[in-house]
Amino acid sequence: MSGDHDGLRLRRTQSVTRAEEIQAEELRVRRLQPDKPCHKPRDSLFSWTSGFDNFTGFVTWAFLLLFMGGLRLLLENFIKYGIRVDPIQWVYVLTGQDDSGSEHPSLILLLYSLVPVVLCLLTEKGLSVDIIPNGPGLIIHVINLLVLVMIPIVAIQIKDGFSLMGATSVSFIYCVLFLKLWSYVQVNMWCRTQQRRSKTNHSFRRQSLSFSNLGSGESKNGYNDDHEHEELVQYPDNLHLRDLFYFMLAPTLCYELNFPKTSRIRKRFLLKRIIEVVIGIQLILAVMQQYMVPSVKNSLIPFSNMDITKASERLLKLAIPNHLAWLCFFYIIFHSFMNLMGELMHFADRNFYSDWWNSNNIDTFWRTWNMPVHRWAIRHVYLPCVSMGYSRLSASIFVFFISAFFHEYMVSVPLKTFKIWAFMGMMGQVPLSLISKYMERHFGPRMGNVVVWASLILGQPLCVMMYYHDYVITHFGKDLLEDYSHV
Amino acid sequence: MSGDHDGLRLRRTQSVTRAEEIQAEELRVRRLQPDKPCHKPRDSLFSWTSGFDNFTGFVTWAFLLLFMGGLRLLLENFIKYGIRVDPIQWVYVLTGQDDSGSEHPSLILLLYSLVPVVLCLLTEKGLSVDIIPNGPGLIIHVINLLVLVMIPIVAIQIKDGFSLMGATSVSFIYCVLFLKLWSYVQVNMWCRTQQRRSKTNHSFRRQSLSFSNLGSGESKNGYNDDHEHEELVQYPDNLHLRDLFYFMLAPTLCYELNFPKTSRIRKRFLLKRIIEVVIGIQLILAVMQQYMVPSVKNSLIPFSNMDITKASERLLKLAIPNHLAWLCFFYIIFHSFMNLMGELMHFADRNFYSDWWNSNNIDTFWRTWNMPVHRWAIRHVYLPCVSMGYSRLSASIFVFFISAFFHEYMVSVPLKTFKIWAFMGMMGQVPLSLISKYMERHFGPRMGNVVVWASLILGQPLCVMMYYHDYVITHFGKDLLEDYSHV
Repeated sequence: MSGDHDGLRLRRTQSVTRAEEIQAEELRVRRLQPDKPCHKPRDSLFSWTSGFDNFTGFVTWAFLLLFMGGLRLLLENFIKYGIRVDPIQWVYVLTGQDDSGSEHPSLILLLYSLVPVVLCLLTEKGLSVDIIPNGPGLIIHVINLLVLVMIPIVAIQIKDGFSLMGATSVSFIYCVLFLKLWSYVQVNMWCRTQQRRSKTNHSFRRQSLSFSNLGSGESKNGYNDDHEHEELVQYPDNLHLRDLFYFMLAPTLCYELNFPKTSRIRKRFLLKRIIEVVIGIQLILAVMQQYMVPSVKNSLIPFSNMDITKASERLLKLAIPNHLAWLCFFYIIFHSFMNLMGELMHFADRNFYSDWWNSNNIDTFWRTWNMPVHRWAIRHVYLPCVSMGYSRLSASIFVFFISAFFHEYMVSVPLKTFKIWAFMGMMGQVPLSLISKYMERHFGPRMGNVVVWASLILGQPLCVMMYYHDYVITHFGKDLLEDYSHV
Repeated sequence: MSGDHDGLRLRRTQSVTRAEEIQAEELRVRRLQPDKPCHKPRDSLFSWTSGFDNFTGFVTWAFLLLFMGGLRLLLENFIKYGIRVDPIQWVYVLTGQDDSGSEHPSLILLLYSLVPVVLCLLTEKGLSVDIIPNGPGLIIHVINLLVLVMIPIVAIQIKDGFSLMGATSVSFIYCVLFLKLWSYVQVNMWCRTQQRRSKTNHSFRRQSLSFSNLGSGESKNGYNDDHEHEELVQYPDNLHLRDLFYFMLAPTLCYELNFPKTSRIRKRFLLKRIIEVVIGIQLILAVMQQYMVPSVKNSLIPFSNMDITKASERLLKLAIPNHLAWLCFFYIIFHSFMNLMGELMHFADRNFYSDWWNSNNIDTFWRTWNMPVHRWAIRHVYLPCVSMGYSRLSASIFVFFISAFFHEYMVSVPLKTFKIWAFMGMMGQVPLSLISKYMERHFGPRMGNVVVWASLILGQPLCVMMYYHDYVITHFGKDLLEDYSHV
């Protein structure tokens, strides 16, 4: 460097211009030389002083290397294990047919779920016409919901013949029902409260608002806004089976009396989503059979012996297929399936996920990856808690515990292994959140994003391995473990 | 969709505005409802209609997954082979001490390279003072250069006791000397030609041009432009040993009489480059010992048996460490070492590589990854050919063949295996170039970039494996291959 960094901005610009002049003059003089000079002073691109910053080619590089690494693992796996994908076996696992013959306890439980739903509606009907007083009505609802949650726990524990997949489906659907009915009861309570308040004020009029027909318009997903808007449904006109079933099937956990609707079903859109669901499920099952099952089985011994090097190697080996299966699962559930249901039900709000892949800390990730649950938690737990006078922090913690409980529920109940790994995993989000925020603040948003992804990619296979380990020990005993170690 | 796509732009804007009005009105009405509505019509982010396109988080994802995959391979390798890195062994391999005792044929050959260099200078001196006529002078130069290239071929073939690394260094340095002396001879010839032409025209004056001192300026790498410029050196004042040795050590293959110089050596910069060279070489050697050697050895049997699945798996397994070693090698040679030499020699032109990582076709890659050779080829082969009346295509093909020859030379001579894999690899660039251009034109520049990277990542290990296979068969015979297959 020439050293005169202390010059004024103007002087600097002047001197740069002069330097350019000198270079131009020099180039002119050198061009006259007979040796055809081809060198001129400049920096290498990797030097900071060059000011060069276009490294987009390395993004291609990363994705290509990733693809090739994946392809090699695929080949290695085929050479080692042959083809393990077997759709027939999955049918057995799904229905549990090979174990229990013609009994289908999962299907029976799924059908039984109609009972608490109908019971809920009847209670609401009774409350709306004052047959059931407010206090007992609330108690009936609470008992109904608690029983709803308990049914899978008890049934799956007591009754044999549940396939793993059947038990998982039942637990998942009962969870969803619980959250939906909670919302249904609470929304109806809000309406009833307002109705009563209005009545006591003698100011309640049936609001027969209709949207003014401003003319035709366009919307993206066929949202119905060029039809004349019908009158909004008012409480208690909503309390009938058809409305409740619509809510049960709609891809949302938050009840409201007048959902935004689309005007038509887009057939191409629907067809694409159906194909995605069918192919996606096959893909996930194939990845599990071919890659995850051998990896998890091979992880048993290192995890038992606390062999950290080998266990880490196993964890990283499982991480890739597990993560790909999760990404696929996410897409299938949150994009394909929910959009499929939304299209069928004319449900216009397709905000099922936000851009969690860009999230720079754990908190943002939890707020964006599962919008139905997030919106449910805000509307039905967080805000009510805050309006009841609890602090925002207490409300957050309460939301967090409910979330942790249902995570544990959906894993432990089907596996019949009441360990607390999933619960601990949720609790582990608190220090993780602090770490990710620290990284974001001190090393830039990109590092926060790295922490989020790393926790996703590594956290899940860790839980899967711990559950499998405990599952084997609980159900087959330590002897099996010793048998394995001789293989 | 509402269907009125045929409306004018204005009408469309109006209808969108109306749709917004309706939505706003609807939202207002719905906000009055007691059920606290939270849904509004919108699309999922993965739907094309959402217009969302921020997926930068997946770049973090790709790099993280790549890092984790690499970490797992590292662990797997350590579990399988233990630590194989052994710097002492490398000293033996480098110097060949364990084979030949105190003989150092590589060092002797390196010292001997002074002879053709001095011979070249003497011939030039003779030519400049007309002791040697033009025709015989050219013949002496051609013979001198041909002998220079032949020395390593003959010496390494005949004399035992060359270590692989020693033989590679000798071949590499003799190649570089050949290219530099070619440039030296040609530039001096240009100068002589112009001198003679000027003399015959009686218009030759010693041009004593000096740069006008326009004042002080700044430049990035300490380029000397605020000193008063010295007079430019004119032919034949350049013909002395000091100038020739400067050119031999300068990080360029193109001779000129007045190289652009820096005013000072930046000590921090120099120190960083030295550290990079030392650590980088260790890293490359460690990667080779720990990862490449086992992979290459394991590839022997599948390659012999033409087992395509296993050979592909091996190829992909070797591709990753090979590619990382190459990237590291590129950085060490083209950034660290050349900048180191440049800084020591006050050489100001640091354009050793361009942004080949962004190149969208094979041609651009070859034009940008190795600037010294590229500039040499343009200045000393392509342009002279064109000015001699050959077509641009012929000139390109000639450059291409010289490049292919030297690639083959630098691999075959040290390995003493005169196969044509490297030559074929270079020839394979022609169809590859067509493919990459096709991809670029039909699938966008990103796909061209993918082809470039893929050919880099896969082409090299393929050549490495083929050479190793032939090397083993040539030097140890087919018996060893059978011995291997029992391991």
